[in-house]
Amino acid sequence: MTVTRTVELEGHIIDSGTMGRCFGLVMDMGGEFEVEEFEVGRHKHAETYCRMRVIADSEENLREIVHELNQNGATVADPRDATLEAAPDDQVVPIDFYSTTNHPTYVRIDGEWHEVEDIEMDCALVVEKSGPEDPHGAGKAGDRGNGETRVRTKVLNAIEEGDLVVTGETGIRVEPPERPRNGGGSFGFMQGGVSSERPSKSLIAEIADEMREVQENGGNVLAVCGPAIVHSGGRNALADLVREGYVDALSAGNGFAVHDLERDLYGTSLGVDTESLEHPRKGHKHHIYTISEIVRLGGIEEAVEAGVVDEGVMYECVVNDVPYVLAGSIRDDGPLPDTITDAIEAQNAIREQAQEADLVLMLSTLLHSVAVGNCLPSTTKTVCVDINPATVTQLLDRGSAQAVGMVTDIGTFIPMLAEELLE
Amino acid sequence: MTVTRTVELEGHIIDSGTMGRCFGLVMDMGGEFEVEEFEVGRHKHAETYCRMRVIADSEENLREIVHELNQNGATVADPRDATLEAAPDDQVVPIDFYSTTNHPTYVRIDGEWHEVEDIEMDCALVVEKSGPEDPHGAGKAGDRGNGETRVRTKVLNAIEEGDLVVTGETGIRVEPPERPRNGGGSFGFMQGGVSSERPSKSLIAEIADEMREVQENGGNVLAVCGPAIVHSGGRNALADLVREGYVDALSAGNGFAVHDLERDLYGTSLGVDTESLEHPRKGHKHHIYTISEIVRLGGIEEAVEAGVVDEGVMYECVVNDVPYVLAGSIRDDGPLPDTITDAIEAQNAIREQAQEADLVLMLSTLLHSVAVGNCLPSTTKTVCVDINPATVTQLLDRGSAQAVGMVTDIGTFIPMLAEELLE
Amino acid sequence: MTVTRTVELEGHIIDSGTMGRCFGLVMDMGGEFEVEEFEVGRHKHAETYCRMRVIADSEENLREIVHELNQNGATVADPRDATLEAAPDDQVVPIDFYSTTNHPTYVRIDGEWHEVEDIEMDCALVVEKSGPEDPHGAGKAGDRGNGETRVRTKVLNAIEEGDLVVTGETGIRVEPPERPRNGGGSFGFMQGGVSSERPSKSLIAEIADEMREVQENGGNVLAVCGPAIVHSGGRNALADLVREGYVDALSAGNGFAVHDLERDLYGTSLGVDTESLEHPRKGHKHHIYTISEIVRLGGIEEAVEAGVVDEGVMYECVVNDVPYVLAGSIRDDGPLPDTITDAIEAQNAIREQAQEADLVLMLSTLLHSVAVGNCLPSTTKTVCVDINPATVTQLLDRGSAQAVGMVTDIGTFIPMLAEELLE
Amino acid sequence: MTVTRTVELEGHIIDSGTMGRCFGLVMDMGGEFEVEEFEVGRHKHAETYCRMRVIADSEENLREIVHELNQNGATVADPRDATLEAAPDDQVVPIDFYSTTNHPTYVRIDGEWHEVEDIEMDCALVVEKSGPEDPHGAGKAGDRGNGETRVRTKVLNAIEEGDLVVTGETGIRVEPPERPRNGGGSFGFMQGGVSSERPSKSLIAEIADEMREVQENGGNVLAVCGPAIVHSGGRNALADLVREGYVDALSAGNGFAVHDLERDLYGTSLGVDTESLEHPRKGHKHHIYTISEIVRLGGIEEAVEAGVVDEGVMYECVVNDVPYVLAGSIRDDGPLPDTITDAIEAQNAIREQAQEADLVLMLSTLLHSVAVGNCLPSTTKTVCVDINPATVTQLLDRGSAQAVGMVTDIGTFIPMLAEELLE
Repeated sequence: MTVTRTVELEGHIIDSGTMGRCFGLVMDMGGEFEVEEFEVGRHKHAETYCRMRVIADSEENLREIVHELNQNGATVADPRDATLEAAPDDQVVPIDFYSTTNHPTYVRIDGEWHEVEDIEMDCALVVEKSGPEDPHGAGKAGDRGNGETRVRTKVLNAIEEGDLVVTGETGIRVEPPERPRNGGGSFGFMQGGVSSERPSKSLIAEIADEMREVQENGGNVLAVCGPAIVHSGGRNALADLVREGYVDALSAGNGFAVHDLERDLYGTSLGVDTESLEHPRKGHKHHIYTISEIVRLGGIEEAVEAGVVDEGVMYECVVNDVPYVLAGSIRDDGPLPDTITDAIEAQNAIREQAQEADLVLMLSTLLHSVAVGNCLPSTTKTVCVDINPATVTQLLDRGSAQAVGMVTDIGTFIPMLAEELLE
Repeated sequence: MTVTRTVELEGHIIDSGTMGRCFGLVMDMGGEFEVEEFEVGRHKHAETYCRMRVIADSEENLREIVHELNQNGATVADPRDATLEAAPDDQVVPIDFYSTTNHPTYVRIDGEWHEVEDIEMDCALVVEKSGPEDPHGAGKAGDRGNGETRVRTKVLNAIEEGDLVVTGETGIRVEPPERPRNGGGSFGFMQGGVSSERPSKSLIAEIADEMREVQENGGNVLAVCGPAIVHSGGRNALADLVREGYVDALSAGNGFAVHDLERDLYGTSLGVDTESLEHPRKGHKHHIYTISEIVRLGGIEEAVEAGVVDEGVMYECVVNDVPYVLAGSIRDDGPLPDTITDAIEAQNAIREQAQEADLVLMLSTLLHSVAVGNCLPSTTKTVCVDINPATVTQLLDRGSAQAVGMVTDIGTFIPMLAEELLE
Repeated sequence: MTVTRTVELEGHIIDSGTMGRCFGLVMDMGGEFEVEEFEVGRHKHAETYCRMRVIADSEENLREIVHELNQNGATVADPRDATLEAAPDDQVVPIDFYSTTNHPTYVRIDGEWHEVEDIEMDCALVVEKSGPEDPHGAGKAGDRGNGETRVRTKVLNAIEEGDLVVTGETGIRVEPPERPRNGGGSFGFMQGGVSSERPSKSLIAEIADEMREVQENGGNVLAVCGPAIVHSGGRNALADLVREGYVDALSAGNGFAVHDLERDLYGTSLGVDTESLEHPRKGHKHHIYTISEIVRLGGIEEAVEAGVVDEGVMYECVVNDVPYVLAGSIRDDGPLPDTITDAIEAQNAIREQAQEADLVLMLSTLLHSVAVGNCLPSTTKTVCVDINPATVTQLLDRGSAQAVGMVTDIGTFIPMLAEELLE
Repeated sequence: MTVTRTVELEGHIIDSGTMGRCFGLVMDMGGEFEVEEFEVGRHKHAETYCRMRVIADSEENLREIVHELNQNGATVADPRDATLEAAPDDQVVPIDFYSTTNHPTYVRIDGEWHEVEDIEMDCALVVEKSGPEDPHGAGKAGDRGNGETRVRTKVLNAIEEGDLVVTGETGIRVEPPERPRNGGGSFGFMQGGVSSERPSKSLIAEIADEMREVQENGGNVLAVCGPAIVHSGGRNALADLVREGYVDALSAGNGFAVHDLERDLYGTSLGVDTESLEHPRKGHKHHIYTISEIVRLGGIEEAVEAGVVDEGVMYECVVNDVPYVLAGSIRDDGPLPDTITDAIEAQNAIREQAQEADLVLMLSTLLHSVAVGNCLPSTTKTVCVDINPATVTQLLDRGSAQAVGMVTDIGTFIPMLAEELLE
């Protein structure tokens, strides 16, 4: 007694690894496959097409396999509409809701494929049908922006009672990244690993090129910043990059901002004079004094206006209208009045930044980089820089189509990056 | 033109390093010292006494040196009362407020030394004088618990307008840890570093002895838990320890709880079957399904009551009345209804746990361990276990008097610890 | 002006990634490909066949591409014999000699394919034609063991003047690993990365199963041992495994042996009593005293015979006839008389061990594991255990077909492994 | 029944930690102490004197305590001559020989203190009495260079039959490092740990200052170089430093030299073009081709003479007469003809380099840095640079009086260092 289902794959599925992955997972999950049709892409630009029958012992197993194939880019050969079910309560999704990948995704509703807006991993898909129930409206093929049917991602805590949530796996098409035909430069294709055997200066130059290109194209660079930037002496160069327009948004924690402001108020970071390396013993109190000073003034913007803060990264953000999100955490001192202490509220602010970004620089912070990375589609370019190889590996390991990881010292990286961009 | 001030030190100040540290910091900070009296402790149990004059170029420099000496255990020879100043506004401390260490601290008010309650690093000291303003009351020497004058720590965001806050450095006495006369066993004295060259099984046996002793003395063990405990297969053993009463409180994040519950609901953690090692491809969705299931039921306790959750760490906490704090963070999925999403609220909950703990086990989580560590006095015993040596070093580097660090695999550590304790 | 060449691939080349890799590298290296024939393997056990024409701008570029395709399993469609050239001098290979991969390799000589003996990475291939120059002998197709023509690997320093060395890329066939049809268990297929998110105890149980199976099949387990085994308390369990026959050969450095012997002679390792954790201050001298004592006696075997050494890993090796190689290094103290101080001589001894091994356990030593790994064919199973994830990654990153990496504490790993095997 | 012995300490023994360490170890080792006289150094430049009686249960225990006190700077109050014993055989030291620390050490012979030449850790002390046996010669007090009595260190394998070896602990004085009175700058006093919280650029500038000062004083800088220097793109800058005279000697392994030469011969390092970052697929063979090419030519110097090698670090060493030692290891390919494959011979070559060095730069190599570090007195300044914090910690943890550790990227460190020194 076996059950079967037929799926199709199309695209650069051999060199992108999709085809091999799909064969592999059928075998790993205890199924069998029978290729019914296979048309190889005979040259670089030709796409491959495969139709195969998947065979499993039980409907349950078959569904699991097909689900997994779907998330890797296979679509059921005979497509049907997605199934929808209303959320029974706020923050409660229907059982068997479809949980998203971070790849571009399409949902079939009333016979049409709609691209999911703001795709993001581990979300529910919510369908919104607005406007008059025009029976002819649905006929306009491929009309993603018809204003009548939209599919959006929602994180679980944003679900509202009655939301139409996609369930099961039918009527959903996922497009995993394809190997770029032109190499892709430093931004490796789906590289989970990180090579430490690449020349640092050249890699920094390539990252600078990428930033310059994004800037020239009016794109958006989001810098996710950890406090090590300030300790290790990369702060001035980062402030320069903000001032010169190479950073369009900044995402950080309370600690980063405090260290940056401490540097301005006391010339130290965690008590170390970052120029002279002298360690004024009293310095470790500067951290908490900085917080109390900013609290007294009412916040960072107020401190800038009062002239108390007149240089540094936060200063440049304020005077150059670079929006920033300071997300709180349980290890914070203070916190500053600017820090969003509620995790959900902070995630929402981060989500907005992430969705607008074309290039994300993850600079020496695991917590904030993971938070931003959780909200990114696989198509956003990412640069991960950390001294700890395990951090870089973890950040790259999210299936980003174009990512470059560097295991390096943020205190030398940022000055060198600024030198490339500003001189 | 020089200014001087005389300070005193007393105790096992030579072998505890206090004396050397004080000489060193006077020199490092550009001052001079002149020892006026020195009575060496002639044998193991005899204390040393030193009175020295500190000389500096300016009042400013002298104050900084004396402040630092104070934080390292020196007291001004001719003691005066601490200076107090009312907080000008909520969350705003007076300029020049005294920022605490995590060592036992005494404040002199009306000629009497009062021990600070719930000492914790980087806080303000708030003096509360309650009861009738009895002019004679202050005369009862050494009466710490007189109910009329109390000194407590307050984090900055808890300051209320009008709080009497200690400023400056006079009238404050700090007692840094002393080298224990009896060795101290595995719990090294002020060891910032971590030796990986110690036998793991023996060290685990010593930690077990310590836990047993705390339990026998009615003490309180706080386990701070990271999600790696579940992935790496340490969950069942930890659940056993909770059930058998070796854990009195648990501090963790949303992720730990979800992984633990996923293990129960689906037999996987992040999709890996932790017994068979099989990786059901569908498994990575179990994480988000677990959250939606618990949300549907209303929370962990409700899930236990409903019989949906019937084993694991969170289950044992619920049925054995072991209080837990789940602190939210910006990288959380969900979160669960039990998770405290506001960072300040979460810190307050953690603070309560920390203040009650006699022994803290920091198990494979940097974020939560730092948050707990921030609230601990230097006298609380701590055990830090992590696979990353940098994490262990960072956690031990807080001046805890008695701490032991192990760079090991939490997935082998917890089963071995449970074996030592339960068999 | 383009040049072309036709290559063929055959096998489970889609799910093993070979096909995708070959398409990818043609593109990456600036070439084009034209698939002339493609017969997909329609089900799990059916092999895929591909014949494609590779197109490049220059003969030089074409050769480079074809070379790389060859190393990844493609063979030139119209096979010719390999080209041979005599080595001009001892240790000097002909220019353009073929440098090996660690995959099974076949060389075509006189129209026949000969499997390379003792395949190993980065070697030259040397052809030996022995016996009477029988003109008909070469006609016996597929006769690998005919005793007349053999192809062996030789490291550069072993080349002798006149050796017939294979040059260029023609007449060479490489067989990269194929994804096993049956999953492969814990031994992941070509996994460069290491998951720390797997349960340690279960993984150790699977490694024990593998060792038991090798033992039952009369196979050979080579343990490569670092000194951390002794410090961290894994020594007794390893000695048990040697005594019980689970280790067939041991490869280590001078340091490992000294620490093991010190433990026996003084009850310490680097001066730490590995049972009581006490650190006799004098202990750090035990290391150098151990060496001088063994030197005095003439060596390890002599020390065992003299009854001076009567337990531990080296002792069990001696009394159970488990051969060991102690390879010297520039950081050694002593060294012991048993240590081979010449690097080439030591490599040759290691090479013999490696070639005989069916399963290699790499236990907390990067240097010795790399040295052993350099000599292994990709078909030998390897287990890499280290507390440092970068070490595990580096060791797994050699294209071994079946390898499992564990980031864990060797001091808990070995006792748990022994418990699985011996109880 | 107790036994006692009186020891003395003198110097800046409080702030250098010596006094506290000595009290602590008496207690840790189960002894008691009775301070008989204590004269505190009343100001910065005044030395402290302590005479104390050490009390133990047994002569054995007393000896162990006194030995340990001795190694930490205490001397027996009533000094006697050192005891000497002839080595019974080549490479065999007398039982109970004195094993050295790396601190300046003096041996009392015929009533005079002789400074040990070329002090190095874990060696035997060999006394050479040369010249006519002049009974009056020994009377010239303090005449270290009298040519008649010399004390030198010998590693165990260099001991020759009949060598007069120092045994026991009497007549030996050790001078552990003292805290410098002037701070000491970046070169921290006895810092086992490494702060990553210091600004990288400033720290590099201080290291450059130190190198400039050594150069100006005619001192000797030894660079210990790992292959990562070449991969990560630091090679050209290092070659510049060699050419400009900032490196007086170079210590490395076969791998470093091969990577450096490969970069020159093929423009790649391990196959990666370190300028364009392109990865010519054929490149990983360049490594082995480079070796065969240099072997063919006869060595590095011959390759330079032949004009085959005309840039890079090894080239600059050859043309600028900077002596280099290439020490072989079991993981080497090749090796090059210049590589010393015997570990003992290589150690001896490294020892000579180490003894001449005033400043040692340990650049991204654990193996070679440990080998060099083993031969260094604690008075030689060392700079340790590595991306792995555990490596830096291990290298700093040798009791060097003046050492600075940086956890940074060698590929950005060396270019920045060169920029500081050369521009």
